[in-house]
Amino acid sequence: MARQRAQRAKAAEAPRETFKSMSPSEFFYHYKEIAGFDNPTKALYQAVRELVENALDATDVHGIFPDIFVSIEAVDREESFYRITVEDNGIGIPPNNVPSAFGRVFFSSKYKLRQARGRFGLGAKAVIIYAQATTGRPIEVYTAPIGSRRVYYFKLKIDIQRNEPLVLARGEFENPSGWHGTRVSITIKGDWSRARHRIYTYFQRTAIAAPYANIVFVDPDGNVVVYRRTLNKLPPKPREVKPHPHGVDAEMLKQLISRSNAKTMLEFMVETFQGVGKKTAEAFLEYAGIPKDLDPHRLSERDIVRLVSKMREFRKFRPPSADALSPLGPEVIETGLRSILKPEFVVAVTRRPKVYEGHPFIVEVGIAYGGEIPPQEEPMLLRYANKIPLLYDERADVAWKVLHSFDWKTYMVTFPAPIAVLTHIASTKVPYKAAGKESVAEAPEIEQELRNALREAARKLREYLLKKKREEEAKRRIVTFMKYTPEVAKSLAVILKSYGVKESDIREMLLTAMKKRLGLPEEEFAKLVEGLEVSVEE
Amino acid sequence: MARQRAQRAKAAEAPRETFKSMSPSEFFYHYKEIAGFDNPTKALYQAVRELVENALDATDVHGIFPDIFVSIEAVDREESFYRITVEDNGIGIPPNNVPSAFGRVFFSSKYKLRQARGRFGLGAKAVIIYAQATTGRPIEVYTAPIGSRRVYYFKLKIDIQRNEPLVLARGEFENPSGWHGTRVSITIKGDWSRARHRIYTYFQRTAIAAPYANIVFVDPDGNVVVYRRTLNKLPPKPREVKPHPHGVDAEMLKQLISRSNAKTMLEFMVETFQGVGKKTAEAFLEYAGIPKDLDPHRLSERDIVRLVSKMREFRKFRPPSADALSPLGPEVIETGLRSILKPEFVVAVTRRPKVYEGHPFIVEVGIAYGGEIPPQEEPMLLRYANKIPLLYDERADVAWKVLHSFDWKTYMVTFPAPIAVLTHIASTKVPYKAAGKESVAEAPEIEQELRNALREAARKLREYLLKKKREEEAKRRIVTFMKYTPEVAKSLAVILKSYGVKESDIREMLLTAMKKRLGLPEEEFAKLVEGLEVSVEE
Repeated sequence: MARQRAQRAKAAEAPRETFKSMSPSEFFYHYKEIAGFDNPTKALYQAVRELVENALDATDVHGIFPDIFVSIEAVDREESFYRITVEDNGIGIPPNNVPSAFGRVFFSSKYKLRQARGRFGLGAKAVIIYAQATTGRPIEVYTAPIGSRRVYYFKLKIDIQRNEPLVLARGEFENPSGWHGTRVSITIKGDWSRARHRIYTYFQRTAIAAPYANIVFVDPDGNVVVYRRTLNKLPPKPREVKPHPHGVDAEMLKQLISRSNAKTMLEFMVETFQGVGKKTAEAFLEYAGIPKDLDPHRLSERDIVRLVSKMREFRKFRPPSADALSPLGPEVIETGLRSILKPEFVVAVTRRPKVYEGHPFIVEVGIAYGGEIPPQEEPMLLRYANKIPLLYDERADVAWKVLHSFDWKTYMVTFPAPIAVLTHIASTKVPYKAAGKESVAEAPEIEQELRNALREAARKLREYLLKKKREEEAKRRIVTFMKYTPEVAKSLAVILKSYGVKESDIREMLLTAMKKRLGLPEEEFAKLVEGLEVSVEE
Repeated sequence: MARQRAQRAKAAEAPRETFKSMSPSEFFYHYKEIAGFDNPTKALYQAVRELVENALDATDVHGIFPDIFVSIEAVDREESFYRITVEDNGIGIPPNNVPSAFGRVFFSSKYKLRQARGRFGLGAKAVIIYAQATTGRPIEVYTAPIGSRRVYYFKLKIDIQRNEPLVLARGEFENPSGWHGTRVSITIKGDWSRARHRIYTYFQRTAIAAPYANIVFVDPDGNVVVYRRTLNKLPPKPREVKPHPHGVDAEMLKQLISRSNAKTMLEFMVETFQGVGKKTAEAFLEYAGIPKDLDPHRLSERDIVRLVSKMREFRKFRPPSADALSPLGPEVIETGLRSILKPEFVVAVTRRPKVYEGHPFIVEVGIAYGGEIPPQEEPMLLRYANKIPLLYDERADVAWKVLHSFDWKTYMVTFPAPIAVLTHIASTKVPYKAAGKESVAEAPEIEQELRNALREAARKLREYLLKKKREEEAKRRIVTFMKYTPEVAKSLAVILKSYGVKESDIREMLLTAMKKRLGLPEEEFAKLVEGLEVSVEE
């Protein structure tokens, strides 16, 4: 006690801090909101989402039509423990990588310049950490790479303080059917009744962006929902690309140089960057005032910073390749919107690739209008990034900002209106605001492209609305005209009888005159007249 | 080439992925938006903020009145390189901890159950990583712990791939003046013209919440702004506390048991948790059906999960201690709001400590009304969490939600109104949505407390507005009355002349009658009449 008192007095005299280190697992264990696991409701949704997105990344990215099975079972209703199972028909995971892929935060196959849903190397691990915190149960994994004669089984946890996998059991089975893919099961605390709506919305939105997938979902109440494949075409496969000179910073350039075997700057430029041929490299090095036969390993820190700055300035590099990207395409978007929202009109726009901070990106916008969409005070916004739907934090998203500063009136839309807008940002790097991937930050280039895409789509909507309005007006005019046609024809017939003109001919003439007046093509006119009931007395 | 082709064919046959590990430094280097470094504008603001918050955490938390000096210099206008310097008079950093404190992501003195501005062990490192990416320059640190006879100097970078400090230079100097504190300088790419407004707002808001601090800021244009101490009182020092039984999950309980030397469950409960005495521990163990002399190390995983669930159910634990918290208090809030916003009315409420998921928290709300606050369509919202102002992502914040679903009319506020609302959440764990610390997630308990606090403050505002309205009405009545008083008095005087009643007496009588009718106390009445210019003809 005396010692304690003395210590306390000393501490009061000169307060010092004790320092501690945390593993990345521990960090996300303590700050689970950052990974999107705020509470049992959000966690159930986030867990489903992370596992489904891994499943999709194992399939369409590699040219496989996804067949995804998802179930949530209530294993302990009193404690609100739910077992989530997700199975895909993807490329599987090599067995030697399984422990780290599930047991080590910041370990991933997706740290590449190639578009994927996941990017952080965090999702599945965050689910496991949350499971350990709430139910204490391990994850179970069955996996078989393509062509594997065996199916591999693992039961594992994460040693959170060490950020290392703890394999509790493993096994191997024959694979006579040649199955490939991954099946994971994990039990977490959740709140199904609150998460229900969000999870169903998630599946619906996922189905809109992946009409080429079959998704089966069995919920804890035993309901089975099937999102059936409605499109037999996959989006283009994204390819891994080299970095673009405009996307490089001082730190990356230093790393690239230290990893390179190039003997000269010319060689280095050509080998390291995408779209840089010998000529471009020479032109650039001259512009930057760097001798082309300089050994890149001899650049000083200051040279490197200058080089980066020159690289950003130089305007003659080819624009970043879009090979790494996989946009949805208008067909996918229109099919998706049509089959889920059942609108009367739908249009989609895929913009050409652009660049922010050296990262290529493509913006896509779809608009669905009328039909079964209920009129609302603001447009229904369906946000996507790299094909995944974003449901939370809408108001913090750049797309929300663009939609809400958009001049809808110019495009003949006045609210309340039955309108839904889909936005999709495809990029090798989506600037998410948080690791939970719910909203996209305001990169000026992305904002501008969203605005351009929205305008382009809205112009087509306006054309449609204009045509619709014109048709309605024409219809009104025809109805008015038609009302009098029989009488006019009759009167004229009486006068022209002596000339042998038939009443039916007169009516025909009148219609032709009207058609000319309305200036509509034959086909459209026929469509308009078709529905009209005009009783003409013969 | 032939080999490459063969390889490609094989890969097409069975696509496999290559896996890679990332260090935490690398993660935040690649995803800098997650730490709040989205672009040069945001980065300049975020860097200032992280360094200032570290400076404040080194002072007031330890009972020192903060003297903070901040400067931003343009060191290369063409490249937009800015040098940020922040100096504090805090407790300093022990020299052996300096390299890791600045060179290792997830290394901190703040991983404790005690309120602090920082919590992640990330802020300063994120600044350094951003500096390396943009300017390639190291951080320079001067520090002296309290009572240190030397000042220590370090120049360092981070080995991003290894998440380790790279010390480039170090030194020691005599410290004859007995200085203590820390001074850091770092050069990053920024955008001062765009960040300017945000940074000034940040200082203003910081000054509101820390009127007991002196803050001097020299901006790149040479302007010097001084936020002078206006309150000579520090908020209570937060103390480190033991975990509360309601805040423990399965993973944490497992760790607590493995670290404990307790031989029995009774011992374990009493030693490990806050506010659990022998009696409470015995009552709880009986409730949970666990023998009190059981060795805690013999609990199975399943037992641990059950124990957690029982701990959460048990209602007889003392509520979490608020010792770890340091609310601002009404005096700080009112002084801060008054000195910066210059309103006509101000009120602040500090609620009693509450708990979410076992973490104690205190909600505070201040309302400033009228004066120099311009009328706006919605209340101006000043959000704080653990004393730091939150400026971005307002619409994603729980406080915004509460404010915007609040029934202001009930409290006599109709918009546009000249009203500002300050919200402060103090907790050992603020559920931030992202590591950039800009918005707070929607924990139901916090939301409820915000609503309660807002109601409590708004009730006082209503009282004030009611009184003001009453006074205005009274004033109007007085004015009306006063207008006629001289005439009435004169007429009466004529009639009453024969009785020797003087006109002035009559006026006096009339005023007394009015005073009685209005039912106002003498003082208030005097105040009301005072300003009125009523020309009474004598």
